[in-house]
Amino acid sequence: MSLTDSQRAALDAAYDEACRGYSEGGIPIGCVLVDSTGTIIGRGHNQRIQKTSATLHAEIAALEDAGRLKASVYRDSTIYTTLSPCSMCTGAILLYKIPRVVVGENVNFLGEEQLLRDNGVEITVADDEKCEALMSKFIRERPEDWNEDIGV
Amino acid sequence: MSLTDSQRAALDAAYDEACRGYSEGGIPIGCVLVDSTGTIIGRGHNQRIQKTSATLHAEIAALEDAGRLKASVYRDSTIYTTLSPCSMCTGAILLYKIPRVVVGENVNFLGEEQLLRDNGVEITVADDEKCEALMSKFIRERPEDWNEDIGV
Repeated sequence: MSLTDSQRAALDAAYDEACRGYSEGGIPIGCVLVDSTGTIIGRGHNQRIQKTSATLHAEIAALEDAGRLKASVYRDSTIYTTLSPCSMCTGAILLYKIPRVVVGENVNFLGEEQLLRDNGVEITVADDEKCEALMSKFIRERPEDWNEDIGV
Repeated sequence: MSLTDSQRAALDAAYDEACRGYSEGGIPIGCVLVDSTGTIIGRGHNQRIQKTSATLHAEIAALEDAGRLKASVYRDSTIYTTLSPCSMCTGAILLYKIPRVVVGENVNFLGEEQLLRDNGVEITVADDEKCEALMSKFIRERPEDWNEDIGV
């Protein structure tokens, strides 16, 4: 699906996070949280390898970076992630009632998009070629690290 | 539901974590992850207040403490939490296919137990009076911090 210019800029920021992760030797998934004014209020990338972390997926890292927010801020925000969100990250989106998710791609991994939709979350899948290319390159290079990240 | 002696000991360890959180001025929810030998391999408590964290719920903190584990370890583990798990923590349990959850109480908060059951997770609710008393004391004392923790 095509994105607006502001959506494209936010997804590009998430992709920049993914690239940062890759350059650190990590799993290249990035995420940003954007508030109702279009400002990025949280950003992060997967930290499994860098921080020996089982929970710092990109979305969790971005929410963590945003810190403690009022419920009303989440409820008017959008989360941009380079890859379809897993069940944990989906659960975090539902916990905070974030109403919109823009997904870079869901070819390398299809997360719980249906559960999000079932709970009224609006999902836009960008089918972004560079997100897909970076992730598929990593999966080819390091399949064991990737499988660990999704509990396989 | 009544617990076995080993289940009781593990839930008590989760309760000890909750008490530690309370003594730190935090939200008193604790969790331990127990492997197939009965050994606690991860433990933690909610860190919203202590670490200005939007994601370190007790279950996430315990999984984080356990570090990077093989999928096979999670799949033969049990998670003990003093309070019914929210959607994020439920999603983490589903991500790693942890097959059993022992919940201290679900009176102060009823999380996504049905979603866990729908995915084949065995849930035991202990109806533990001390877990319930500690949590209800905190909610009375600091309702705003509690509401923030569950996105309200």
